[in-house]
Amino acid sequence: MALEIERKFLIEEPPAWLGEHQGVEIEQGYLAIGEQAEVRIRRADGACTLTVKRGEGESRQEVEVPLEPEQIEPLWEACGERRLRKRRYLVPLDGGLRAEVDVYRGRLEGLAVVEVEFPDEARAAGFEPPAWFGRELTGEHRFANQALAVDGVPEGV
Amino acid sequence: MALEIERKFLIEEPPAWLGEHQGVEIEQGYLAIGEQAEVRIRRADGACTLTVKRGEGESRQEVEVPLEPEQIEPLWEACGERRLRKRRYLVPLDGGLRAEVDVYRGRLEGLAVVEVEFPDEARAAGFEPPAWFGRELTGEHRFANQALAVDGVPEGV
Repeated sequence: MALEIERKFLIEEPPAWLGEHQGVEIEQGYLAIGEQAEVRIRRADGACTLTVKRGEGESRQEVEVPLEPEQIEPLWEACGERRLRKRRYLVPLDGGLRAEVDVYRGRLEGLAVVEVEFPDEARAAGFEPPAWFGRELTGEHRFANQALAVDGVPEGV
Repeated sequence: MALEIERKFLIEEPPAWLGEHQGVEIEQGYLAIGEQAEVRIRRADGACTLTVKRGEGESRQEVEVPLEPEQIEPLWEACGERRLRKRRYLVPLDGGLRAEVDVYRGRLEGLAVVEVEFPDEARAAGFEPPAWFGRELTGEHRFANQALAVDGVPEGV
């Protein structure tokens, strides 16, 4: 299993230059959101995956396997309403880091967040967010994708 | 989605003739056990499946997709301890019904249960269990496979 060390920030207003970066349409749904694990399906530019995430907060364990289109199709229905769509832009940052900017669509339209993954806890702790990053959302459960898929855009955004 | 109408019973002592029936080795694990859904992986005689169950009690909705061996392999680890093994025997019953007898192995050794699936609620309600069926377990959560996988053999069995 891979260990993820991430920090997440709100983007008040997506920068005008964002559209110049590579973007990919992502559709995802949640088969189960349990106390210990969540199971997600995702289609990103046609590539389908099943992802199991365990644990909480900045450090999560994750297992991902590829699915064929005919495998994922019947699983969408099993997600019920717990689905979302977004466009993800990959933006290089200083120090070899990379920002994953998610601009949500559909009923989450108007919400944008950015995540940065770090190789270790020290890099995560020392990270200086660029000016276009808004307030930090790391650990705020209502901004987790599974919470957004269930509850919609959090109040006060 | 298929709708399942089932009743479940304890088997105090597996009948001696059980071994004459077709049996299949089943290994299964739980990727997530949520309030609304559970996601299970299973290998039965080499055939691998991913199953999503939603709902509770006698009526549950279920979606199942086949997995390739190389897809299921990394998912076992994501189940953690929530795994179980059993041998399932299929036993024909009167009226075209079929009993699925599960004889558990490993840390659940000594436990055996039987499930019967019905085409409708009326058939389920009118079912007369054969003499080799023990007390009814339908709706008893601690005998659900996901509970057995997490908590082991219930007390008093």
